[in-house]
Amino acid sequence: MKAWQFTDTGKPLRLVEVPDPVPGAGEVVVDVRTSGLCHSDISIMHHPAAKQALAFVPLTLGHEIAGVVSAVGPDVTEWKTGDRVGVWATPRTGTIPGYTRQGGYAERHLAPASDLTALPDGLDFALGSVGTDAGLTAHHAIVGRGQVRAGMKVGVIGIGGLGQIGARIGVLHGAEVHVAEPKRDVWHLAESVGASSVVADAAEWRGKDFDLIVDYAGYDTTQPALEAVRFGGRVVQVGVGKPLGTINLAVLLREKDLLGSFGGTLDDMAAVYALMASGDLAPVHSEIPFEALNEGLDRLEKGTVEGRLVARVSP
Amino acid sequence: MKAWQFTDTGKPLRLVEVPDPVPGAGEVVVDVRTSGLCHSDISIMHHPAAKQALAFVPLTLGHEIAGVVSAVGPDVTEWKTGDRVGVWATPRTGTIPGYTRQGGYAERHLAPASDLTALPDGLDFALGSVGTDAGLTAHHAIVGRGQVRAGMKVGVIGIGGLGQIGARIGVLHGAEVHVAEPKRDVWHLAESVGASSVVADAAEWRGKDFDLIVDYAGYDTTQPALEAVRFGGRVVQVGVGKPLGTINLAVLLREKDLLGSFGGTLDDMAAVYALMASGDLAPVHSEIPFEALNEGLDRLEKGTVEGRLVARVSP
Repeated sequence: MKAWQFTDTGKPLRLVEVPDPVPGAGEVVVDVRTSGLCHSDISIMHHPAAKQALAFVPLTLGHEIAGVVSAVGPDVTEWKTGDRVGVWATPRTGTIPGYTRQGGYAERHLAPASDLTALPDGLDFALGSVGTDAGLTAHHAIVGRGQVRAGMKVGVIGIGGLGQIGARIGVLHGAEVHVAEPKRDVWHLAESVGASSVVADAAEWRGKDFDLIVDYAGYDTTQPALEAVRFGGRVVQVGVGKPLGTINLAVLLREKDLLGSFGGTLDDMAAVYALMASGDLAPVHSEIPFEALNEGLDRLEKGTVEGRLVARVSP
Repeated sequence: MKAWQFTDTGKPLRLVEVPDPVPGAGEVVVDVRTSGLCHSDISIMHHPAAKQALAFVPLTLGHEIAGVVSAVGPDVTEWKTGDRVGVWATPRTGTIPGYTRQGGYAERHLAPASDLTALPDGLDFALGSVGTDAGLTAHHAIVGRGQVRAGMKVGVIGIGGLGQIGARIGVLHGAEVHVAEPKRDVWHLAESVGASSVVADAAEWRGKDFDLIVDYAGYDTTQPALEAVRFGGRVVQVGVGKPLGTINLAVLLREKDLLGSFGGTLDDMAAVYALMASGDLAPVHSEIPFEALNEGLDRLEKGTVEGRLVARVSP
């Protein structure tokens, strides 16, 4: 089968022919239909430090995988050939696709049977891919860690790829969602997901007494977020655009929570798929053919992609 | 009645004669038996900024109050004359003794009936005073916010007044408690409360994968604490010796919680009293007579007091 492999820093991925995977005990082969492109792939390709996250090289990148089960290991009973699935991109244990096992920029993908979620009928594979990483990460931050509830006054920082999904999920949970986003040319996205207001800077929220703020950006936004939540309020940090930040601990002492959020669970993934299947959650995305993967990564690096980008494998 | 009042920055408290309080609706008069001395009183007396926390001046300081109910308002049914009580020092709403209402450095104290907790039979008033603030704050941090459980691997930073109580409560809950404390001359206190080990610097805990760390100090200790807890672990910040700190948000992303903790609830207070009454929790404390309050505050400022210091009113 064909696979796009990372070989070294600064080089484009290389399209190679590799052996078809064979499922062992507890494993499943997924015929890849769509594989999402992610900024973390760009980091791996261009920054020597990011390469350290890979278990071996050459390695097939790609961790946002949706497709159809084509073979199962001898003891696998929960999946069968023909099942439409998404592959969990942020497992808590075991291997991570495109990092510590071969990834999804390939025609077929070998995955643990325990790391799959069924795609609801009618849900396109492209959205399936979006749900494996960006979708579940956005969901886990606002629902799992943030515990968003109907009637809450919620701030979402950043209306980029994750923030759009997170803000929309907040609205769908019945929260009053406010957005902080410095780029005014994307403010329309806040309106499109049903947000109540947009400001340029989270510092403008001081005194607003939000119940919850989810920071999908992390560019010196943690302290303003902590100041904008009420006594007993919660800030969830999922973006870390600028890791080192100064915090005034005295603000925390008003019984505030600062919670880090990483990826999401299979429950988050299933919840995102259900929202997508109902039509309520429809993240912006576009497609390229599998053969044009390097061109897609170039576009992602240049910042000319709106929403998520997925590569489609022609079956 | 006699009361020790704060009049202005840099001046000792002044012993004055003031009218006896009369309970209105929802109020109770407590004949003060012991009133704890707190470092925050020293701040108020010496730092103009700290004075801003007071609702009016002159004001009777003192917020660690235990005594006997001597009068109740017309509608008060939950308390009666003769009840032994502690007065909640950290109410979430309403007035705070020694800050926004007259405090406990007086022969009698007027309190909301809703802000009292019964002292168990046999528990001395001095420990009752310790429980109203230091005790409940230490408890709330490790039990309420920290959710300490039997078998947990717990770090306690600082073995001072609050840390001693917190560490002991952790041990009593069945946790394996480790202490970080730079002052080696107080390391024996860690052993005395049943801690398993002591280090000078929380940075030595890197890689220890604690379930929970409670930081009773807050001197650049937050980041090492975040690094020393496991994926999904929790750091509770209750001390803020140095409010401005640099945090590496990337560490948080391993699903870690950083939770601020302020004071405690009436449930914390009752739990502390129960542990004290059983003899399992016996914080070091010493006494001075009510008349020697200014001398006691001087000793507290000079750092010559071990454990908590309470002033006793002779009935």
